[in-house]
Amino acid sequence: MVADKALMLTASPNVRLIIEYDGSGFHGFQRQSFGRTVQGELEQAIGALLRRPVGITGAGRTDAGVHAAGQVVNFTCPDQMPLKRMLAALNRMLPADIVVLKADVVDAEFHARYSAKSRLYEYTILNRVRPSARESRFVWHVAKVLDMSAMTEAGALMLGSHDFRGFGSPERGRSPVRNLERLQITRRGSHVRVTCQANAFLQHMARGIVGALVDVATGRRSVQDVRVALEEPERPVSFSIAPPTGLSLVLVEY
Amino acid sequence: MVADKALMLTASPNVRLIIEYDGSGFHGFQRQSFGRTVQGELEQAIGALLRRPVGITGAGRTDAGVHAAGQVVNFTCPDQMPLKRMLAALNRMLPADIVVLKADVVDAEFHARYSAKSRLYEYTILNRVRPSARESRFVWHVAKVLDMSAMTEAGALMLGSHDFRGFGSPERGRSPVRNLERLQITRRGSHVRVTCQANAFLQHMARGIVGALVDVATGRRSVQDVRVALEEPERPVSFSIAPPTGLSLVLVEY
Repeated sequence: MVADKALMLTASPNVRLIIEYDGSGFHGFQRQSFGRTVQGELEQAIGALLRRPVGITGAGRTDAGVHAAGQVVNFTCPDQMPLKRMLAALNRMLPADIVVLKADVVDAEFHARYSAKSRLYEYTILNRVRPSARESRFVWHVAKVLDMSAMTEAGALMLGSHDFRGFGSPERGRSPVRNLERLQITRRGSHVRVTCQANAFLQHMARGIVGALVDVATGRRSVQDVRVALEEPERPVSFSIAPPTGLSLVLVEY
Repeated sequence: MVADKALMLTASPNVRLIIEYDGSGFHGFQRQSFGRTVQGELEQAIGALLRRPVGITGAGRTDAGVHAAGQVVNFTCPDQMPLKRMLAALNRMLPADIVVLKADVVDAEFHARYSAKSRLYEYTILNRVRPSARESRFVWHVAKVLDMSAMTEAGALMLGSHDFRGFGSPERGRSPVRNLERLQITRRGSHVRVTCQANAFLQHMARGIVGALVDVATGRRSVQDVRVALEEPERPVSFSIAPPTGLSLVLVEY
């Protein structure tokens, strides 16, 4: 109710949306000149609703095939419209693989990407001999038995501030240092879940971390290789990059 | 190894397969004159592998859209072939939404449907305001808050042997009595899981049970309506039938 009221009092309110999507059918989050993208679909729906072109900003530019349970976007809303009505209308207009979970009005300074303090990703590995007919779009199937203890040991090394160039690609001229605040590896039956939270992620970094952990857990690489990649980031050590299917952007904190 | 040996010793071994599938893309399990079915795809792959037509028998004839993590089928194998090779070859030939998890050789008398002692189904309800972009094919989205205590009370009445005509359709001339051995309702966040096990199920019975439970949990029907439907099965009480998306055949016991 407060949010709805705020929308009525501000000329061009800054609207924040929490978004869930199944990334399988998208060429990633970010709008491109061709190909279906999450940003493109959202901008089209919002634009159609408000009857004018609207540009949105997203917290994380997820790769093609990567999912989200808590992507955050914001945009300046040129019209006054109750948030509840906007949310319902957008969900009617959007395709079934995108759902707007929440909408609120935030300060004019709020920027989905630059105001974010941390991002939390979850990665799911299906570790059994046969793949899964039901989960193929949401897991990485690894047939070889994972050495959980080696995996956990390698994961512990990654915690904290490091130059993560060995696990992801920094933007040109930007720092490759990120602070990995949390890395949790849990196993439940055949499902291995890797939860990682950092202030920000380099391109492919979440998938690079999981790829390296699986390399160690299958014996393709050693714990020592991970140590070297963290301590001497210029030295090339090639780790696997986990496929996008298993990855979800779960939470963005501000 | 024992199973492979058995296959070499028997002229026409009776082969049992454990199957997982994503039911979204199928017109149900049972072969039909048209439309893609699980049985049809399996018979085509097995037939192509053995280079002759093969008919298979399934434990449960799941409806269109219903999934399986442990469907059981059997067939008489005209050829001698190591099971491990057969399993790998079938998984290469089958589409990605069907996976053969296990293969073994069973007694000649074994019949996937008639030898089964019980079936276990799991049903998943997503109980929150907004639908899920990622889970839509695997849950029933119910926006209204579920009264878990009323739901559990209604479920307890269903346990045991009853005439289940109020919740499913018996085959003509067959008994409508089934023994519901287990009914478990658990909630974890927005996910409500209904696990039900019976010696056998009438057509749509698993979905009818969940539909009735949700009717009670949303106030559309009362616990008393369920009692009446169980005690006076001829009297018409119309419960909802839960959509197929949330349902999976998890285990068949012999």
